Amino acid sequence: MSSAMPEEPRPVRFGIMGCATIARKVARAMLLAPAANVAAVGSRSEEKARAFAADNGLPAGVRLHGSYEGLVDDPDLDAVYIPLPTSLHVKWAAAAAARGKHVLLEKPTALCAADLDAILAACESNRVQFMDSTMWMHHPRTAKMRELVANKGTIGDVRVINTVFSFQADEDFLHNDIRVKPDLDALGALGDVGWYCIRAILWAVDYELPKSVAAFRNPVKNQAGVLLACGATLYWADGKIATFHCSFLTNLTMDITVVGTNGNLHVTDFVIPYEEKSAPFSVASKSSFAELHTGWDPHPSKHVVTTDLPQEALMVQEFSRLVQSVRDAGSKPERNWPAITRKTQIVMDAVKTSIDSESEPVNVAS
Amino acid sequence: MSSAMPEEPRPVRFGIMGCATIARKVARAMLLAPAANVAAVGSRSEEKARAFAADNGLPAGVRLHGSYEGLVDDPDLDAVYIPLPTSLHVKWAAAAAARGKHVLLEKPTALCAADLDAILAACESNRVQFMDSTMWMHHPRTAKMRELVANKGTIGDVRVINTVFSFQADEDFLHNDIRVKPDLDALGALGDVGWYCIRAILWAVDYELPKSVAAFRNPVKNQAGVLLACGATLYWADGKIATFHCSFLTNLTMDITVVGTNGNLHVTDFVIPYEEKSAPFSVASKSSFAELHTGWDPHPSKHVVTTDLPQEALMVQEFSRLVQSVRDAGSKPERNWPAITRKTQIVMDAVKTSIDSESEPVNVAS
Repeated sequence: MSSAMPEEPRPVRFGIMGCATIARKVARAMLLAPAANVAAVGSRSEEKARAFAADNGLPAGVRLHGSYEGLVDDPDLDAVYIPLPTSLHVKWAAAAAARGKHVLLEKPTALCAADLDAILAACESNRVQFMDSTMWMHHPRTAKMRELVANKGTIGDVRVINTVFSFQADEDFLHNDIRVKPDLDALGALGDVGWYCIRAILWAVDYELPKSVAAFRNPVKNQAGVLLACGATLYWADGKIATFHCSFLTNLTMDITVVGTNGNLHVTDFVIPYEEKSAPFSVASKSSFAELHTGWDPHPSKHVVTTDLPQEALMVQEFSRLVQSVRDAGSKPERNWPAITRKTQIVMDAVKTSIDSESEPVNVAS
Repeated sequence: MSSAMPEEPRPVRFGIMGCATIARKVARAMLLAPAANVAAVGSRSEEKARAFAADNGLPAGVRLHGSYEGLVDDPDLDAVYIPLPTSLHVKWAAAAAARGKHVLLEKPTALCAADLDAILAACESNRVQFMDSTMWMHHPRTAKMRELVANKGTIGDVRVINTVFSFQADEDFLHNDIRVKPDLDALGALGDVGWYCIRAILWAVDYELPKSVAAFRNPVKNQAGVLLACGATLYWADGKIATFHCSFLTNLTMDITVVGTNGNLHVTDFVIPYEEKSAPFSVASKSSFAELHTGWDPHPSKHVVTTDLPQEALMVQEFSRLVQSVRDAGSKPERNWPAITRKTQIVMDAVKTSIDSESEPVNVAS
């Protein structure tokens, strides 16, 4: 189908920039998402791009570029997905935007908020859509949980949030992964797993920025000074409080606990659900004690949210829908997603500053 | 049965000091525990003691004392259970010990470690058993979880612990309960619900004291300055870290999350299980990702531990067994329980000091 029909817009033609492991998952998502096509792959060598296309079942006509320049210059792309090391994000996200490509950018989106602002400015001035690639935001479970957290009768006022995201990296990762290299992903665990924790906290409070943060003392760093484990406490003006811990050094853990005046919510697989098509969480609301405090009444309720498309395909679909709206209907790019990205990055900056100043409290910029 | 037989020692004769709500639950536990009898109730008036005995189905022969003095002077008691306001603990626990009564003491055991030390010294010099009334310690689930947490193959080295205990107090509680009164329970939420959090953290690390603590900023206090909600971060010399949050102002929440190098443990009803006779928790161990990081492999395992006797009856039973051993076999009082109590109180002291000094880090005494 080569001409756009109003009721069924042309799929968005994606170029994938780089062949990172995570790109395999997102390539599959592009094959699954009805509004997306993989049109090109760009890598530092054409061989790598070809191997990636073959390994991931990309369509026969996919264009292979032996350089990132080649990819961003490809005139038949609507959008690029950028899973490059974070230190390369400013250059390539801005280059893509300058050539009119919409930008789906892996997290952490930048090494600092100033860098992100350069990316967002490039997207804005070129009227292209920006979205970060935080997949769990797009799972229908997330929407369902958001609805319950926002319901004052169910959870009431959120007062406390705890979140943990860790996985135990193997020796190879700890020596060779880009996420432990100061010249590639200088934020280490904070940028990688910590990104999700900070996002989860902001999500739980409907993106109200905290007033200040204080890093946990004694963060773990590798010999190059890259963070392998760290955490922080976040404070809001109204007394809300959140903690997070992120680490490459402990077992896979993906917790969000939200405690409100009237209820609480627990989810223990928030980043990647245990199963691809169904995702659990539990809610306690207006819990009191059974007679003589010998039990709870009522018990918390368990919820399971199912999805046909995996969360990363829903992310690609949502991004593509926004791109179609800009491309085909002349809409302005949607501004909520980049605003959420920026808040996440701003909090991350403050945490990093606190880590670098021996856990002194740091005010969050606005 | 009036004479002791080695294989079936005489039940321990308890006196209950005061008619607090919690005493109803413990009185029931004494009726359920084979090694315990309720022999007497002491209150500020004999009428109250009589009503308590009637309301709680105590045996017809139970002696009623119209004063605490009368109770501690009762020559036919082996032990007293003391659920008085914390400010009265030193006086009455020491008085009971001085009269040779073994002491089962409600938490928080004292307003500060110095006061607790006076109680423990009285128990030691009078060779009576001391135990604090922290019921969940005695649930078989706790032993099962301890076994798994101690198993290096399952959890590995514990690195992070988060715990929350809160309940939403009603207006009557917030105005009238002894736990919000500066002259009765000056530690407020820290002493009441925070006690369990601190104990849970120490339990998770096999009672290794942290090196320092730093309170969360902006604790909530009532007009009299009593804590209604607070929390802290605890730091160990080897980099372990724990956080807790305790509150009278949010929905019932009873979480322990333990994250180790090889696994994690989640329990969400640790203080009082949802149901009296069965208690759940879950463990993830050596978790990795399914292909393309589209799920977990393996999934966490769910466990349920059943018990015929409720945890408070098991507590009374364990205390009674120790008392019998001192009373009938001339054993020295067991020293592990008071040692655990003291560690809990020492950490609580440090948290309180940090709260009182605007969240400055405070070293934990030893």
